[in-house]
Amino acid sequence: MRGAVIHGPRDVRFEERATPAIEKPSDAVIRISAACVCGSDLWPYRGANPITQPTPMGHEYCGIVEEVGKNVRTVKPGQFVIGSFFASDGTCPHCRAGYHTSCQHRELVGGAQAPYLRVPLADGTLVALPELPSAELVPSLLTLSDVMGTGWFAAEAANVKPGMTVAVVGDGAVGLLGVLSARQMGAERVVAMSRHPTRQKLARDFGATDVVTERGDEGVARIMELTRGVGADAVLECVGTPEAMQQAIRSTRPGGTVGYVGVPHGVTLDGQALFFAHVRLFGGPAPVRRFLPDLVGRVLEGRIDPGKVFDLTLPLDQVAEGYRAMDERRAVKALLRP
Amino acid sequence: MRGAVIHGPRDVRFEERATPAIEKPSDAVIRISAACVCGSDLWPYRGANPITQPTPMGHEYCGIVEEVGKNVRTVKPGQFVIGSFFASDGTCPHCRAGYHTSCQHRELVGGAQAPYLRVPLADGTLVALPELPSAELVPSLLTLSDVMGTGWFAAEAANVKPGMTVAVVGDGAVGLLGVLSARQMGAERVVAMSRHPTRQKLARDFGATDVVTERGDEGVARIMELTRGVGADAVLECVGTPEAMQQAIRSTRPGGTVGYVGVPHGVTLDGQALFFAHVRLFGGPAPVRRFLPDLVGRVLEGRIDPGKVFDLTLPLDQVAEGYRAMDERRAVKALLRP
Repeated sequence: MRGAVIHGPRDVRFEERATPAIEKPSDAVIRISAACVCGSDLWPYRGANPITQPTPMGHEYCGIVEEVGKNVRTVKPGQFVIGSFFASDGTCPHCRAGYHTSCQHRELVGGAQAPYLRVPLADGTLVALPELPSAELVPSLLTLSDVMGTGWFAAEAANVKPGMTVAVVGDGAVGLLGVLSARQMGAERVVAMSRHPTRQKLARDFGATDVVTERGDEGVARIMELTRGVGADAVLECVGTPEAMQQAIRSTRPGGTVGYVGVPHGVTLDGQALFFAHVRLFGGPAPVRRFLPDLVGRVLEGRIDPGKVFDLTLPLDQVAEGYRAMDERRAVKALLRP
Repeated sequence: MRGAVIHGPRDVRFEERATPAIEKPSDAVIRISAACVCGSDLWPYRGANPITQPTPMGHEYCGIVEEVGKNVRTVKPGQFVIGSFFASDGTCPHCRAGYHTSCQHRELVGGAQAPYLRVPLADGTLVALPELPSAELVPSLLTLSDVMGTGWFAAEAANVKPGMTVAVVGDGAVGLLGVLSARQMGAERVVAMSRHPTRQKLARDFGATDVVTERGDEGVARIMELTRGVGADAVLECVGTPEAMQQAIRSTRPGGTVGYVGVPHGVTLDGQALFFAHVRLFGGPAPVRRFLPDLVGRVLEGRIDPGKVFDLTLPLDQVAEGYRAMDERRAVKALLRP
């Protein structure tokens, strides 16, 4: 088969790779219904993460189970499944506590920008739908594999509760779905921070009540103005840069919380400044596996439509254009059709 | 009157100062019943905080109201009162949210190691007891002004809940009272980290179920061993050094929380390491004013006896010896009698 492989910065190739097969009795192999490019794929694409060898790309997936290892009990061939970017056993203390992405036996799932994918620890990782979904739901279901679950975690980690004022730093797919998540959790006011008209519109579609175009000091000042000098109750940091993290912390009221899900790159925090900010901080790789059953339900019931974040659809063999379009911010998120 | 004034590192003098008087209509002046030396007083004493001018010391206090400004409504002369080290108005959005130490009009209270003290914003800062307490309760009531409330906040910030396993980093008065607080909140197992026999005993008296003498990597390894490789549900960081903070973070399970109340000195946090640790972080200056009514009740009912942390009692004029004894770790905490 052919799939996406990164060879170096800005060098993603669609090339021949071995077709995945069952390697361990707990594996499943799935036929990808739709794949996509993640904002975090741009870190290596832009050279921010080292690439030591040609690496198959893609960690967001949904599709039809093709084959399962002999120990797999909860999914079977023919079912439509979604899973997380980290495979998890579902049974260790961290999984039982709901932090599947810190599973004691976690494995990164990689190579999903391809027609087939091997998923380790299938029982703990995959969630099967009761029946095959209609084609128009597939993009929304695909987002549950990462970006929607990550936006949801950002809001959960930020302690979003009904009636709150929430600010969202970052207008990528995760930030936009953080807006949606905060509204689903009952936030009264959700301030999207974005200077891109198409992303602002999407943020409004997802429920943003305010849009702030300023960044840095001016961005903080605007949040303070909108909250009468108090600060937001909760701030979702969905970027991962030092600037975004500082903006998030400084926009939060004392006793409020920053939920951060942008993988930090070059972020260091001054302990004393954080202490006197009186701000709660929680984040990490989103345990999307925990949220899957609930979020699948919301999609199937039509209560959320996170698939709207895909503003570019490409055949899988044009995956390199998907990276380019996202890198150049011509697209929020690229959907890939095998 | 004479009171404690710091002139430079290890130079605390008991010397003549102006007797405090009402300066603003919202002030109260109280006659100190007992004062003490705080672990955080040791930062300037040891030269870790700059001393730019001779500074009156002491921020923990309880005593009898001597005089009030004309706008003060909630306390009156003759009442026994306790207050926080930060004066707060009690009415701003941060106070109403329970974060009085981030009050929009907060003022540091200073100079309590003296016979008299001016307390700004008396209505928002002081809590009056229904009647004069018996002399033997005064040390416990005094701790509510800072160390007990700070230990309590550490446990609250660390999300301590019934049944949890909690580790406490730091065996100063705050750490020891963090042990007491965690037990009051229902923690099943509380691990005190201490290598000092007298402090270990006090930790056990306050309800510690385990004592770990190791520090750093070995300390983390011991917590992992005691929790079967999972990590503690909650960790109280009651020191403020980089080593203590790292030990706390690394001892916490994914999804668990570090409550930190040691004023950070030289602490910087790596964003990416914190992200993958999956640990919640919350701390800051403890809003002890919020806890005062509840904690006063616990002391008056004999449910807690935090005054046990005082293992040295000195007449106020020997305050310098109190600093020396704590600096040399000959004493956990020194009580000063005017």
